[in-house]
Amino acid sequence: MTLTQTMLAAVETELQKQVARLDDPRTKQYHDMLTYHMGWSGAGAGPEASGKRVRPLLVLLSSASSGGDWEAALPAAAAVELVHNFSLVHDDIQDNSDKRRNRATVWKKWGMPQGINAGDGLFVLSNLAITDLISAHPAETVVRAAQILHTTCLELTRGQFLDMSYQTQIDLGVQDYWPMISGKTAALLAGCCSLGALLADTDDDTIEAYRSFGHYLGLAFQVQDDILGIWGDEAQTGKSAASDLMEGKNSLPVLFGLQKKGAFAKRWAEGPIRAEEVEGLAKLLAAESAYGSAQDAARQMTDLALTSLRQANPQGDAGQSLTDLANMLLSRKQ
Amino acid sequence: MTLTQTMLAAVETELQKQVARLDDPRTKQYHDMLTYHMGWSGAGAGPEASGKRVRPLLVLLSSASSGGDWEAALPAAAAVELVHNFSLVHDDIQDNSDKRRNRATVWKKWGMPQGINAGDGLFVLSNLAITDLISAHPAETVVRAAQILHTTCLELTRGQFLDMSYQTQIDLGVQDYWPMISGKTAALLAGCCSLGALLADTDDDTIEAYRSFGHYLGLAFQVQDDILGIWGDEAQTGKSAASDLMEGKNSLPVLFGLQKKGAFAKRWAEGPIRAEEVEGLAKLLAAESAYGSAQDAARQMTDLALTSLRQANPQGDAGQSLTDLANMLLSRKQ
Repeated sequence: MTLTQTMLAAVETELQKQVARLDDPRTKQYHDMLTYHMGWSGAGAGPEASGKRVRPLLVLLSSASSGGDWEAALPAAAAVELVHNFSLVHDDIQDNSDKRRNRATVWKKWGMPQGINAGDGLFVLSNLAITDLISAHPAETVVRAAQILHTTCLELTRGQFLDMSYQTQIDLGVQDYWPMISGKTAALLAGCCSLGALLADTDDDTIEAYRSFGHYLGLAFQVQDDILGIWGDEAQTGKSAASDLMEGKNSLPVLFGLQKKGAFAKRWAEGPIRAEEVEGLAKLLAAESAYGSAQDAARQMTDLALTSLRQANPQGDAGQSLTDLANMLLSRKQ
Repeated sequence: MTLTQTMLAAVETELQKQVARLDDPRTKQYHDMLTYHMGWSGAGAGPEASGKRVRPLLVLLSSASSGGDWEAALPAAAAVELVHNFSLVHDDIQDNSDKRRNRATVWKKWGMPQGINAGDGLFVLSNLAITDLISAHPAETVVRAAQILHTTCLELTRGQFLDMSYQTQIDLGVQDYWPMISGKTAALLAGCCSLGALLADTDDDTIEAYRSFGHYLGLAFQVQDDILGIWGDEAQTGKSAASDLMEGKNSLPVLFGLQKKGAFAKRWAEGPIRAEEVEGLAKLLAAESAYGSAQDAARQMTDLALTSLRQANPQGDAGQSLTDLANMLLSRKQ
């Protein structure tokens, strides 16, 4: 097994241990909701239903590549994945989404009230997981790790607030994009990388370089995801390229288009996009230079991520794996 | 000002400081949602809209009466109140409640998706608040405090799960009541009292006595609330005595009634109770000895709370105030 594979197996074991805090005959169904969402139980269970566990991997690779013992960072790796999944469970309710990773969402299966509670449960478990670091780290480090985790979660809820409030705003510009996406996507990746470095007991400059790497990695990844959401290839991404325009998502290319105040902006203001308009509208948006501008932004964020990674100077096998992971995330089909 | 009044003023200042973490031009509306819910802003703002802050008071009085500096426990006091309010915001969505403390609920004012996020925000703020203890306590104590807070929250979500799942169960018994109410009501009061004693740096036996006091105080309070919810006086409690029966709430008297498998159980199984049936049904329930059984349970829990309080042996002015608070909570009009 490669280092990454070994880590992923250990992450799954740690996550199961954390979620087992609810494994009790009286709350069996509650536990079932969480194991279902995590991809371990119910119809369609398996790796496809679990997601890629990119965030815990970032914690462990950041820790090992800055000189730490990655196994001692496992509770933090579990914590960030639990936070990510808490946010997905609530997001699915907020977006009224029926499907997640090709399966029925938790709230769709068990109802909205239990869905909210299942998300809350994952959130609490992430908080408990981070305190488990006490078995292998000084208490001062555990408190700092908790502060990083909770500050990250605050950013996450701020990003979520902005995303939802943008849905009813019509005068959005590109300047509104970055704070939203910094909270929704980049904050957690930044938190992962700084947690890993912190637990390796490195100096503050190195922790900051890792944090910055995660932050720009998140921004670059999100901009690429936005580009794929309009011009991407459905077979490659597994989601319909049409969906972002039809869903009215305020993605970066759309905001570039709105800024132009041209034909795209005019059509966008008139209301929901129909399926048969999508292809033409995507071409119009590209012709109004939104494709090029978004590509420029993606390239810029990618450069910033790679510069920060060089500053972090990750070492050894883990350093190579971290660089490979970054390249993989940053060079998806454009 | 009495000690309690001084503490309550300090709690409000600390809570405002904690919530101000979201006071930023970009997330102004998000901050508004939280200050509205906390009772500080919007229509109907004021002490009536804030609630009684019983939980933070329990933290501070437990701390001071076991030899601690209550001002150093303020972040923990804020944390428990933020947890309580997070649970109320989500509870209102789960129960589809339009009103809370005579004002529109957060989700009713800003919509369900933002309501979920506002609850999540209060939850994150409680986590951040507990780490603020680091300015006046050793890191080891902060980690223990965080563990108490998060374990309490896990119990809270378990209680919430049980409460919601009971709504569709028809074969409930009195044995199902205690775990639900232990999670929904008693866990947080137990957490408050043990946090206070922990931060006073007392021995584990004393912390346990305080915890046990909070636990039984919560159970006794809830049983009394259940009794008032069926036979109570509307003018005294501020809520309609009829509401619990009409809402189909699985309160302790109802569970005693169901256990009898008599006329009450028969009517209960037939579906929702109409307003004009309430008075007769309350009499029927009392005649089937549910009133007496519930009173016995309340008395038993009250005795256990007072025995634990004696074991905790609270000292000084704070000890007297804690005893007064307990008596006030335990001897509401029955």
